[in-house]
Formats: sequence, C-alpha cells, structure tokens
Amino acid sequence: MTTEISPLAPEAFPELPPLGGCRLATGACGIKYENRTDLCVIEFAPGTAVAGVLTRSQTASAPVEWCREVLKTGKARAIIINSGNANAFTGIKGERSVSRTLEVLAENLGCKVEDLLVASTGVIGEPLPEERITERLPEILTTLAGAGWQLAAEAMMTTDTFAKGATREAHIGTARVTINGIAKGSGMIAPDMATMLSFVVTDAKIPASLLRVMLREGADRSFNSITVDSDTSTSDTLVLAATGKASHQEITEKTSLDDPLLADFRRALDEVLLNLAHQVVRDGEGAQKFIEIEVSGAASNEAARKIGLSIANSPLVKTAIAGEDANWGRIVMAVGKAGEKADRDKLSIRMGGVKVAEAGERAEGYDEAPVAAHMKGQEISIQVDVGVGAGTAKVWTCDLTHGYISINADYRS
Amino acid sequence: MTTEISPLAPEAFPELPPLGGCRLATGACGIKYENRTDLCVIEFAPGTAVAGVLTRSQTASAPVEWCREVLKTGKARAIIINSGNANAFTGIKGERSVSRTLEVLAENLGCKVEDLLVASTGVIGEPLPEERITERLPEILTTLAGAGWQLAAEAMMTTDTFAKGATREAHIGTARVTINGIAKGSGMIAPDMATMLSFVVTDAKIPASLLRVMLREGADRSFNSITVDSDTSTSDTLVLAATGKASHQEITEKTSLDDPLLADFRRALDEVLLNLAHQVVRDGEGAQKFIEIEVSGAASNEAARKIGLSIANSPLVKTAIAGEDANWGRIVMAVGKAGEKADRDKLSIRMGGVKVAEAGERAEGYDEAPVAAHMKGQEISIQVDVGVGAGTAKVWTCDLTHGYISINADYRS
Repeated sequence: MTTEISPLAPEAFPELPPLGGCRLATGACGIKYENRTDLCVIEFAPGTAVAGVLTRSQTASAPVEWCREVLKTGKARAIIINSGNANAFTGIKGERSVSRTLEVLAENLGCKVEDLLVASTGVIGEPLPEERITERLPEILTTLAGAGWQLAAEAMMTTDTFAKGATREAHIGTARVTINGIAKGSGMIAPDMATMLSFVVTDAKIPASLLRVMLREGADRSFNSITVDSDTSTSDTLVLAATGKASHQEITEKTSLDDPLLADFRRALDEVLLNLAHQVVRDGEGAQKFIEIEVSGAASNEAARKIGLSIANSPLVKTAIAGEDANWGRIVMAVGKAGEKADRDKLSIRMGGVKVAEAGERAEGYDEAPVAAHMKGQEISIQVDVGVGAGTAKVWTCDLTHGYISINADYRS
Repeated sequence: MTTEISPLAPEAFPELPPLGGCRLATGACGIKYENRTDLCVIEFAPGTAVAGVLTRSQTASAPVEWCREVLKTGKARAIIINSGNANAFTGIKGERSVSRTLEVLAENLGCKVEDLLVASTGVIGEPLPEERITERLPEILTTLAGAGWQLAAEAMMTTDTFAKGATREAHIGTARVTINGIAKGSGMIAPDMATMLSFVVTDAKIPASLLRVMLREGADRSFNSITVDSDTSTSDTLVLAATGKASHQEITEKTSLDDPLLADFRRALDEVLLNLAHQVVRDGEGAQKFIEIEVSGAASNEAARKIGLSIANSPLVKTAIAGEDANWGRIVMAVGKAGEKADRDKLSIRMGGVKVAEAGERAEGYDEAPVAAHMKGQEISIQVDVGVGAGTAKVWTCDLTHGYISINADYRS
C-alpha cells in the first residue's frame, strides 16, 4: 500500500487552539496497526449539546446504530474513536463490543454509557478485539488535555496519507467563539477499511435543536457534495458538539436560524465543514487532481446536485481528467445519464473557464489550447449549464488513476 | 490503445445462417478509421415488423431521436449503421446528417426515409462527415446478400476487441424459425466512442406490438442487467426485426404473450439477447474476469436488480475481484448503499458457492481456501440473499483493472 503523501495535501496541519470544555487523549492499543496510535477520546464538559449526521447505509455498523440513539438526546460527554477495525457486519458480537468499551469509558469519566458516542473505522466483518481498548483506556484517559488535535486526527487515520484538521473563529454578537474540526477519509471506503469520520467542536453555547439543522444543511453543501468513488461507507459519522464555555449573547431553541446573531457562526461552521470535506477529496485514493464541478440551469438545486454527482462519479469523466484530456463528450454523456431534466440543445460546458460547448454542440471557434493547459494543472474546474431552470450546485471529486486500482486491487486481504 | 483480444472472448464467431427477407452489406467509408470497414446496412423485405429499445439518456444522439419516431410505426425496410462517429451532441447539423444519409439510402432501396433506421457509434461532438457515407453507399448496396453477419458485426466495432454474434433456432408450432443477432460495445462508452448497439433479426412473422413487449422484457433480463462502468451511452440502440418469411402458424396482435405457440420463440430470443449481452461484458474495457451476481430475498425483483447493480457498479467490489481478493466486506457495503431494503442481520453471501457470511456476520467456520481458489478463475459467482422478501435478479459485470484506466486515461484526444 502506498504511504506517499497525496500531491494535493495542504502544506501543513493547521494550528487548532484548545477549546473550553473539551479535552483530548490518544493512545496505541494495537487493534490492528503496530507502532502507531489507533485510539482517540474527545471529552466534553457536562451540558455539551451535540448533533450528528450518520451514513444512510442499510448495513450500518454497530457504532453507527448506537450513535443514532444517543444523538436523539442532543447531549454527550465524550466520543471514543478507534481505527483498524470498523466493527461493521459483526452481528451481536459487535453490539457487545460497543457496550463493553463504553462501560469502561463511562466508569472512568464518571458518566452514563448513554452519554457516550463511539466511532470505528477499519476492516469490515472482523470482530473488534475491544479488550485491547478497555485494557489501555484508563491509562490513556490520564493524558486528557486541551491540546492534541493533530494527534487525535492522526489516531483515526486508515489509508489516509495526511491528517485533516480545520479551525475558524466566529463572532456571536461581540463575543468570539472558536470551531475546531478533524476528519479522516480517503475514498468512501479504503481497502477493507471503511469510512469518512469527522468531529467538529465549538465552545459556543447553542442548543442541540439548532445544531442539528445547521449541521444537516452544512453537511449537504460539504460532505454530501463530495465523492471519491461513489461507494458509501457503513460507518460514515459526522458529529458537531458545542461545549457552551464561551460567553456570548444567549441563543435558545427559540432563536431563529436566520437570526443575525448566528450568521457569522454559520459562515465559520460551513467553512470548517467544506475545508475538511475538500481535504478528504484531496486525499482520495490515487488522486492527482482536485475537481470542482459547478452545475447551473437545473430544474432545482437538488437536480443540479444529482447532475453534478453523475459527472463526478463517472469513471469515464474521471479517467479522462486523469489523462489530462479535455474530453467534454463524456461530460455530455454524464449529464444525460443523471436522470434529471436537461435540454441537449441548450447545454453549455466550460472547462477552466473556457466555453467548450454551447447550444447542443461544440462552441464556435473553440480553441483547445487554453483548455489543454488547464487540464495539466492540479485544480480542475468544470461548469455546466443544463438550460432548463435556476437550480445550482457545486460538487467536488478527484480523478480516477492507476493509483486507485493499485491501492484497491493490488492488495490482498 | 490495446488491440489484444479480451481473455474472456468466445473461441470463434458463431455461424449465422442467411435469413429469408434479410440482406446485409458492409463497406469502408473512411469516416474516421483507415483500412477497415465502418459502414453496414441491414435490409429487410417489405412488411418486416420492428421493435426497439433506446437509451434513456437526456442527451441522446440524433440517430436515436430519429429511431424513436420511426419505431412508433412498427415497421422498417433497413438499418444503416456507421462506426467512427456517434453523431451525438452535433445539434441541427447532426439531424441534417441523418436526413441526407437516409435520403440516399431510400432512393437506392426504393422506399421512404420514414422506413429507415439509423445508428452511429464513435466520437461524440464531432460533426458526422456524411458525404463520405453517401458517396460510397450506392456501390456498397450492390453487394447486399444473405450472408455477411460477421462482416456486419465487424463494421460496427469501435474499441471492441472481438465481433459479437449469436444465433438460435426456435419452433413456432411445428415450423422452424431462426433468430440472428449481432452486437457491439465494450464499456457503456469507450474512449470518446459511444455505445452499445445490437441488431436482432428473425424470419418469424410476428406483429410489432408483440415484438415490443418481448424485446422490452428480454432486454431487462439481458442488456439492462449488465454494466461495465455504470456509464450510460448517448446512443444505446437495440432493434428486433421480424421479416415474416418463415411459414408457421399465424401469430396476430391478438395472440397472448403467454400462448404456448410463442414459448419456444421467447426462450430462443432471450438466449440470443443474453448471449450477446454477456459478450459485451466479456469485452468490457480491461476485463479479466466475468462476474455473475445473483440476488435473492429482496423486496421485489426490481429491488433485487438495483441491489445487484449496486454491487456490480461498485469500484471497490470490482477492484477487489481484479485483485482476486474475496473481500466480502465490500459486498456488504454495496448492498447497504443500494437504497433498497435489506436486513443486515439476515444477510448472507456466497462466493463461488461457498457461504462466507450469514446472519449478519462472517459464517461460522468459514474456510477462505476454496473461495480464494475460485477468485483466481475467470468466471466469478456471487450470491447474496438480503433476507427481506422473495425478489430475485441476476446481473453481470466485469472487474475493474489497470487495463480500464489505461484504455480511458492513457489516451489523449
């Protein structure tokens, strides 16, 4: 398996400041990997509000099913995350592994198991050796501290080639709050190892009911608008926690989502989510190019997103871009197969800002030279107008290369 | 581009006998390729009934839009097929190319343009130089003859590595009829060259209304149950023509589809369609393995087909098989993402006939050795029972290899 860092990686992991009401600890339990960390706990102060977005998979993992219940309460005291084993398709054994792990964690943190969230990423179908976690856990928890975000991001990596973090500040009224986020993922599923996981924490005091809506909408514009290989994990988990330790004007369940008080926070949250989602694409298995696809003129925003994802998931579009080929005929094909309304005779396509097709045929006087130059870059832009309405969407993906095949086929379990 | 014949190809092109009321001609027009044929005409006797299944793409080619109208009449006197240019996304120019080509053909055959079908496969977005066809067409038509099915199949190849044909005999009452079929396709779309095309002709006398239903149902179980790369062409065209030259008991529009008189014909038709569809998969770009996926226990047959295609289209399943890896965790993932009902805790999976997973976890005493041996073969069998109902389906695909990337990415337009 390749260990080279993706050519699309950011220069460095950003500086994530400590957050009031949030402590982290990491450790090495030897669940599957040797000589690296594979466990991370994020602890929250009492009163922390949480919201989450989980995989829609019909074969979701035991940890996902557990979180689905806990998230309904809108509160949590900690999240425990392991890499190396997804605890997915492990039947009743998997549920027991979750219970046993959380019992030890609850005892050590002095809370109830119902206050705890859990996420696992790694091999599917292997029973989780949770005793390796529970044996080491008490000692690991003695290291809980406000710093350590990069270590936490590293502990949950599987085939990721770099740790992913983002931070933003926001104003709520005149007060300043912070949002920190970490993520892992490198393909919807990496070889035998599942999952996109992301955990975002803020010191703002915002009730769970508002967090839920903000997270759902933000996720739709970020994590739900990216694709590496169209495969959906059994374990995708995105959690947003608000510890409430910052002092700011009161936000209650009655505060409207459109309240100006929330505007800057929402901007910052969306930026953190989008930044993390882009990093997942930039670490897509075998990725050499980062691709932004902007669709306009669709029947609705949802139709635009579906057309965008049809382009982003097309193996023929993705291999053409890997080959630095401005093959817009394949984009036409992908628009056509999306199943959403499009007017062939009004369709227009731009690549790198240059109009290559309009009114249902190749653009008059189309000069391929600037487009060919654009295709040689690392950041590819595709704009498509389907000519039937006002719906728009942006989606992101990476190219499909020999590297993807090598990672996923040249590997034996 | 590779020119090696697929390792999954049949040993030889089968012997397709001449059919009463059907003549073929092929020729080289130099539309794009040099030193090979690229045009084929299949002529039918007056009174021939036809039915067709066309791409559902919203960006369908000019020939597809033309055929959609002609097929409504249920009759046709000929089909003209060219390779090298798909005449897709060519706007009003493309429609004119269709008209000009068919005017010359109609004049030479002594029929109306409305009696003619047309299909094109090749590059998208380039105007079709139809004058190269119309100049050579009269001379090519002087060679019309009952033999020449293999030549016809060869003339429509693009990135296909072998010509595809199938033939079956059937009894209608005590009379014997024949069904011949040819197809091309090697990926829903090959590099810049679109399309799955298939033309099936019988000397039976069956009205268009019955042909339509038999073809639609047969196509659902064959061409609509295969996938190479999930990409849908702008030009997919399947046509069934019945010349009516065989003498058999009368079949009219009032004959029921369930009439025993039709049973053997339907069996033979389904066999021809399935055989041709399998050959397309066997010529899938870069294919090294032919994969049959059988889904049972789904909420409905349609749900079973959707789950089967979700598995068949999963890049992670296809790369695992390319790597000869019995990675059933990825099959669980693909079932989960299909969006159809499945019971994780009743799910069972067999590979090569061996139970690898049941009741939501790895099968008790699962021995990987026989499965690993199966994965090394060219014919891979996957059986999945999703545990919620009585719906079943079979779908077919090939693996995803470095060859696919090489064909589609290492190529420059």
